[in-house]
Amino acid sequence: MKLEHIGIAVKNLKDSNQLFEQLFGQSSYKVETVESENVSTSFFQVGESKVELLEATGEDSAIAKFIEKKGEGIHHLAFEVEDILSEMKRLEGEGFQLINKEPKKGADNKLVCFLHPKSSNGVLVELCQEIKE
Amino acid sequence: MKLEHIGIAVKNLKDSNQLFEQLFGQSSYKVETVESENVSTSFFQVGESKVELLEATGEDSAIAKFIEKKGEGIHHLAFEVEDILSEMKRLEGEGFQLINKEPKKGADNKLVCFLHPKSSNGVLVELCQEIKE
Repeated sequence: MKLEHIGIAVKNLKDSNQLFEQLFGQSSYKVETVESENVSTSFFQVGESKVELLEATGEDSAIAKFIEKKGEGIHHLAFEVEDILSEMKRLEGEGFQLINKEPKKGADNKLVCFLHPKSSNGVLVELCQEIKE
Repeated sequence: MKLEHIGIAVKNLKDSNQLFEQLFGQSSYKVETVESENVSTSFFQVGESKVELLEATGEDSAIAKFIEKKGEGIHHLAFEVEDILSEMKRLEGEGFQLINKEPKKGADNKLVCFLHPKSSNGVLVELCQEIKE
């Protein structure tokens, strides 16, 4: 496993992009809208990991609900795995609760599965595996 | 900059250690109490970054207050810098609010400085620099 990215919920992607550019002293390298998740995203590379800013594109977005409840801040941690299906099976067997029972297509050309924060110490965990063409 | 570690606030270090051992499929490599911060900590290595679990050792601990307000979950992100003094000066100039105006001794043999989440999108950011003997 490695930490693939940290997802941060923001109200305004443009403003937060500028803020994180100042923090990291570098520009975002990619902006991507993920329509299936109702989010616009922006990525920064920090060492081997990425920071992904997430802005809701609609009220149904999980990000909009998160911000309404908790305010802006860290939303999830994503760990890269080699075989997402076997990791999902292993973790379910260990008692973790999978939010999606099948891997789904996420941002940045990945298959993803989320673990419910109730089963992982209040941390929303994403497992992700790169889709190889 | 690289992501040095992610700090996660937990109620019970022993229970959470077991949970994260299951999640990562590996054991914690170090447990350390930081008396100046009123916390007990436990570290996992995940790629080039670490996950630091933090349990309060007293009611005055920032971790106890965080859990009371927000529940267990991700508490801070720590970025390693080469020269903490110059980064503190640079970021203060960019409008970030430093919680401590002088670097202080943190866990894991580091000098640390925290940026107030109000000035960084709801994210408590730690800058850290390894203390070289």
